[in-house]
Amino acid sequence: MKTLKVPEATITRLSVYSRFLEQLERKGIVTVSSVEIAEGVGVGPAQVRKDLAYFGEFGTRGVGYNVKDLMRYTRKILGIDEPWPLILVGAGNLGFALSAYKGFNERGFSIVGVFDNDQNKVGKKINNLEVSPLKKMPEIIAEYNVKIGIIAVPQYAAQEIADLMVKNGLQAILNYAPVALNIPDNIVLRNVDMSVKLETLTFNLSRKEA
Amino acid sequence: MKTLKVPEATITRLSVYSRFLEQLERKGIVTVSSVEIAEGVGVGPAQVRKDLAYFGEFGTRGVGYNVKDLMRYTRKILGIDEPWPLILVGAGNLGFALSAYKGFNERGFSIVGVFDNDQNKVGKKINNLEVSPLKKMPEIIAEYNVKIGIIAVPQYAAQEIADLMVKNGLQAILNYAPVALNIPDNIVLRNVDMSVKLETLTFNLSRKEA
Repeated sequence: MKTLKVPEATITRLSVYSRFLEQLERKGIVTVSSVEIAEGVGVGPAQVRKDLAYFGEFGTRGVGYNVKDLMRYTRKILGIDEPWPLILVGAGNLGFALSAYKGFNERGFSIVGVFDNDQNKVGKKINNLEVSPLKKMPEIIAEYNVKIGIIAVPQYAAQEIADLMVKNGLQAILNYAPVALNIPDNIVLRNVDMSVKLETLTFNLSRKEA
Repeated sequence: MKTLKVPEATITRLSVYSRFLEQLERKGIVTVSSVEIAEGVGVGPAQVRKDLAYFGEFGTRGVGYNVKDLMRYTRKILGIDEPWPLILVGAGNLGFALSAYKGFNERGFSIVGVFDNDQNKVGKKINNLEVSPLKKMPEIIAEYNVKIGIIAVPQYAAQEIADLMVKNGLQAILNYAPVALNIPDNIVLRNVDMSVKLETLTFNLSRKEA
């Protein structure tokens, strides 16, 4: 699919719209307006229309969008109309939390391998998956044709794990360790900084008080 | 401080720049250009300049920005030039992971109370804090003058906890439960959907293959 260069913020919002449309669909709602989507997710209606316009023409004037069609289409744009197997490295608290996160499955993601180099963790069950030693990574990646890896290890170990993922052919990495990783340009990398969202709260709270 | 209406995406990036500046400062780097900041965090240099321009004039042409000054200023803008005590509800895996997350402390956040209504969890230690029953929430909020609460409970319990937080005077909520909460307009609410970042990966991977 060829598209204009789409801003990252649009992709992020598209994911949020898509999740909201799923909620509507589960409630049996058939059509929705851009105003309703906007209110449901907390952005302006013009933003919703602008974001969707990157990908074509949707909706009927005065009627709105068909919930099921738009939901399917947003999933297709996001690349989650097919399932994605993932591997996760790091069987600490964060690794457990991510493995147990129901939101992943709902969006077509399934964790097919959890790895750790700590001998006390290897062999333990984490959400029905046994924690494997790092050396088993190539086998699992090949078996499930995995392209995405999640890093949930401490800061000091993150670069080494990223190198290992790249060496084993992964094409995308989601990094939860609070450190900037060196990764070849052809690998898609996103970092999750858990304090970023907190800082959008404090930004707003500080403004309220001023 | 009065400012123009600042886009949420700018605040998010400002938080990322601020973290990057901290890394530079720890390495003893004195000045930095917008190009270097841009490369360090993976956005365009024009974006860096545009984001900073919302808050005034920084830097010297041909010299760049003073790392320490800009770091301090970004922290001030984000409202984290002072420490923020937080409470956390939900002592499951995610609660444990969040309590252990070193990135919070580095940014001035400290979790001063962890709550759960599960009798098996109350009394357990989570990162040197004892898990308290929900009824102790008002006491801790008053003692530490807490304004921000984090929700890390399952989906079905999230609205009830949000209501309790609002009733107890919190002004901002960070919600990790994958559900849309009903919250009064004067409360600042942000939702963390752990699958959103994954979907920016799959979006890019799908494009690469097309």
